[in-house]
Order: sequence, then C-alpha cells, then structure tokens
Amino acid sequence: MAVYTEVDAKTLAAFLRHYRVGEAVSFKGIAEGIENSNYLLETTKGKYILTLYERRTDPKDLPYFLGIMEHLANKGVPAPLPVRDTHGKALQTLAGRPACMISFLSGLSTNIMGESHCAELGATLARMHKALADYSPERKNSLSLEGWTDLFSKIQDRADSVTPGLSTLIQDELDFLQSNWPRNLPTGTIHADLFPDNMLFTGETITGVIDFYFACSDMLAYDLAISINACCFDADHQFEAPKAKRLIEMYDANRPLTPAEQDTLPILCRGAAMRFLLTRLYDRLNPVAGATVQSKDPIDYVKRLKFHQQVKDAASYVV
Amino acid sequence: MAVYTEVDAKTLAAFLRHYRVGEAVSFKGIAEGIENSNYLLETTKGKYILTLYERRTDPKDLPYFLGIMEHLANKGVPAPLPVRDTHGKALQTLAGRPACMISFLSGLSTNIMGESHCAELGATLARMHKALADYSPERKNSLSLEGWTDLFSKIQDRADSVTPGLSTLIQDELDFLQSNWPRNLPTGTIHADLFPDNMLFTGETITGVIDFYFACSDMLAYDLAISINACCFDADHQFEAPKAKRLIEMYDANRPLTPAEQDTLPILCRGAAMRFLLTRLYDRLNPVAGATVQSKDPIDYVKRLKFHQQVKDAASYVV
Repeated sequence: MAVYTEVDAKTLAAFLRHYRVGEAVSFKGIAEGIENSNYLLETTKGKYILTLYERRTDPKDLPYFLGIMEHLANKGVPAPLPVRDTHGKALQTLAGRPACMISFLSGLSTNIMGESHCAELGATLARMHKALADYSPERKNSLSLEGWTDLFSKIQDRADSVTPGLSTLIQDELDFLQSNWPRNLPTGTIHADLFPDNMLFTGETITGVIDFYFACSDMLAYDLAISINACCFDADHQFEAPKAKRLIEMYDANRPLTPAEQDTLPILCRGAAMRFLLTRLYDRLNPVAGATVQSKDPIDYVKRLKFHQQVKDAASYVV
Repeated sequence: MAVYTEVDAKTLAAFLRHYRVGEAVSFKGIAEGIENSNYLLETTKGKYILTLYERRTDPKDLPYFLGIMEHLANKGVPAPLPVRDTHGKALQTLAGRPACMISFLSGLSTNIMGESHCAELGATLARMHKALADYSPERKNSLSLEGWTDLFSKIQDRADSVTPGLSTLIQDELDFLQSNWPRNLPTGTIHADLFPDNMLFTGETITGVIDFYFACSDMLAYDLAISINACCFDADHQFEAPKAKRLIEMYDANRPLTPAEQDTLPILCRGAAMRFLLTRLYDRLNPVAGATVQSKDPIDYVKRLKFHQQVKDAASYVV
C-alpha cells in the first residue's frame, strides 16, 4: 500500500520507448497492493497500471501470473491485460525491479458487498474458473495444508499472546483438516485471494478482477470458500446467509458444483478461514519495521472458523 | 505518502451527489503528500483529486489554502481548482475528515530538474507571486525565525546524536540569522515548499503547481531561496550554478528582484536551508510509529547551509 521504488520521469520516458503506448501524460504512485509498487500511468494513448515487483514476489512466478491475466483478458473475463513491448515482451526490468505494464480497468472496489455484488462475484468466479480450464501452467499452492503447518510451527509458541487458547484451537483444527481435507475435488487455476479489494465494480457489475499474485493450482471450490469468508460476513464477523446464498447460487448456475464439492464446502470454508487466520497471525507476530499498513486482525478469522466449525452441512450456507 | 482514511464506494457516491461532477468511474488512493489522504477520482465528467485532511493540517487554515489555489487557477497559473458543490461550498466533511475535491492536473514530477526545468520554475514562481499580489488573506509563517528557534529548543539536546557538532552549528547559525535576517523586503503570499515533487511538468513546461499546504505570508525572495535549495543541488548535494542561474534569471525576468532582495539572497538561502534542516532533524529524532516514508536526511541541508555560508554575494549564484 505504498510506493517502494520511485521511478523518475526520465526513467519512465526511456522505459515507454520500448512500447507502442505513446508518451506519459500523468504518473501517480497508487496506494494499492501491499507487496509491490504500483503506478497509475496515463499516456497519450491510454491508461495503464505499472507494477514494480518488490522482494516478496518471486520473479520466477511472474510469467505464470501474467499468463493468467492475459488468458482471462483474451477470453473476455475482466482481468487486466499485460501490455507487450515492441519485441512481444510483457515482463521487463525497471529501476532494478521486475516490472510489468497492464491495462487499466475502470470501476471501484467496495468494502460493503451487497447481495447483488455477491451474486455477480459468484458468476464471475465460475466464469473465471471455466476460462482458465485450458490454462496449462501450474503453480503449487504454498498456502494449503502443508504450508499452514509450516507457518504455524513458526508462531505456535507465541500464538497465545494474541489470545489465550489460540495455539490449541489452531492445532486441533489443523489436525481435523489434515484428516478431512478433500483430495478428489475438481482442480484448476484459482485466484486464491478474491477479496472485495481485488474486484472493481461499475454499479453492480464486475469490471475488473485484479491482483493475481496468489493464484495457484488448487481445488476450484476452495476459491469459492475463500470468497465466502471474504465477502459474506458483516463488520462484526457474523455470517450473512443471504449474501452467501447468492454467491453460491450464481457460482453454481455458471459452473455447477459437484455433489462432492457441495458436501465438503464447510471443510473448505474451515480451511480458507485457517489460511487467512494463519497469515494474519504471522504478520501480527512478525511486524515489518516501517510497514505502511496496520496488520489485519487474525481474530476476525477465528470468528469465521468457529462459525464454519458449527455448520452442519453445505445446505446451511444457502438457507 | 499513503491513504490514512478509507472511503467506500457507497460513501463516495453519496458525497458526489452534492456536486455536478457526474458519477465515479474509478477511484484510487494515491501515494502523494505525506500528511493527508489523497484519491485520484475519475467521474463521468472529469478527473479530480479528492483530499481528506488528516490531523497535521489545521482545519482553520484550509480556506486560506483553497483560496490560494482558486485565486491562481482563476488567473491562469497552473494550480488545481477547488471544486465547489451545488451550494458553492468547496470545503466539505467526508468520513469524519475535512475534505476537498480539486481539479486534476496533467503532468509528471521529476526528481531530476534540468536547466530548462529550473528556468520554467523561475518564471512560474514569479508569475505566481504576481498573481497572488491581490490575494488578501494572510497566514503567519510558523516556520520562520521564531519557529526555527522553537523547533530547535525541542531537539537541541539530541542534535549531536545525528552528527557531532550539529547542535553548535545550528545555534551559531540561528544567532547569525537572528541578527541578519532581512526585515524590509517585499512580502506577499508564498508557496514555501516548492520542491520538484510539488511541480508537474509536461515536457519542460510546468502544467501544475500543487500542495499549497505550507503557503503563508512572507518575503517573496524567500520562496525563491527555498527553490534554489530544493532544485539546484545535485545528488551529492553539490551546488549546480547553471541551474540556479536559470532559475534566478527567469524569476527576475518576470518579477525583477529589488537590489535589497539581490543583496540578501545568500542570507535567505541560509534561512531556507535552516528551515528544512530543522524539520528534517526533528522528524529524524521523532520518528512516527508506522510512518510510511523513510525520514529524509537532515545532513543534506547541513551541506546546503555550509555552501551558502561561504557564498560571498548574490552574484555567486548566477555565475
């Protein structure tokens, strides 16, 4: 949520000469994305986002992420299109960082997702999964079962400092997930971080899905579970059934959930809650000096986890 | 350099209904200005910057600052124009903060000011001073002689922790400035913070002067001295005479400097160096928890100060 690497006007002008995008008219660092430096660039020919990838992004993953965006944009799913230079290259180096220019998408993100927004999200998520069915590159999800266990081992001894009993709660849940995590659901390329701030709306229509930097190969229904956690709880972290109903219904209408996916949805939701609980807890216990954003509260996801733990079956989500 | 106050799409839509600017098309927090939250807003009718003023800006000063921008924009000096709502009001409240929407200005800021940029700056600064000659509101410069002494008294005992001997150097210089600070130069409304990041260029033409939140009533030539310090030293803090020459010449061509202004220019430059030395030193010694920007190095201004101390007369700046 800041600009970590400054790009001077002269450096930018030299960079733009590799493209057919005209000349810079304005150039503003934007407070978007926690991990990278992002600029909104307007040229004589159009509007773009210029991203410089900072340390936390592994450069070898970038072709995978950019490939997803291009694949989606080319199929009409509203994702940013990476812009290729005159030599056909999308991934560049700028100011010593890997960098890429992508098309700018109109729309606003909203923290307050209504039922219509959730319905639209469900439909878009399903369409995205279908559009990516023939995207062949793969990337392991480093934040699934195995990753959770690794992450927890680094913070286990300090978890109770955030709230007493948290360490046991997580260990018990990890044990449960280890035994019950579904293994044979349909898999594919998932976004894996589809929170409200990664969607742009114009009215109630999604005009942009952004920030594919957690995308990976995993169970499709797990992506849905992440969005249920992200979008269907109110400010007090109470479940909002009407929103989940619309989200799941519209996903299912566009990509019918298999019986196995339906049956395991509560477990997938528990796993999704665990994933964000653990990363938030890790960030809370390992604050970055000079960090620009207040770390998010892991307890929000303890509350979600406890909700999902008492859910009887998938039908409970669509009452 | 961040967004401190988030504005949701719904809140924004309600806010925009007070204006005749159409509806929001996109809305991005921008990494601009250290003190306030700034958004780049595109509507169906145009582009704007929406600023929410955070704690460090005194709300009672805002009409003064907005008045300057409006005064300049109306006279054709490239400053942002505050947008008035349907009731004629420019200053609003949004998300509990004083807020104002101003017109968006094209152009890019450059850290690397060339001689032509400096010439353009000189001309623009002079035109700005002339355009503000009939701007009647006044605001005391809280960062002049008296303010420097106050500020120094808060950090005097720790100054040497930054570099040995700094406390004595500052005290001696403050004594000198107290005795020699000019008292009868032409005064008016000055920008008081005209650094490269507060100017937007299209090519070598200034298309925007921004960030008037340090503007105040003071000696006009002091504003020129601030810009000499800000724009006419290289990355190693060595004076660049050809840039200063163009800056001063073009200022003088548009608003002739009086003999007294010319004579006292070295002292004004010493004062300007002292002003930024002290605020940088204060920020270095009083870091803000969770600050988004690395504090700037006060020593940069020690080097400038030492340069100005050995300058014989104003002619030395335009050799």
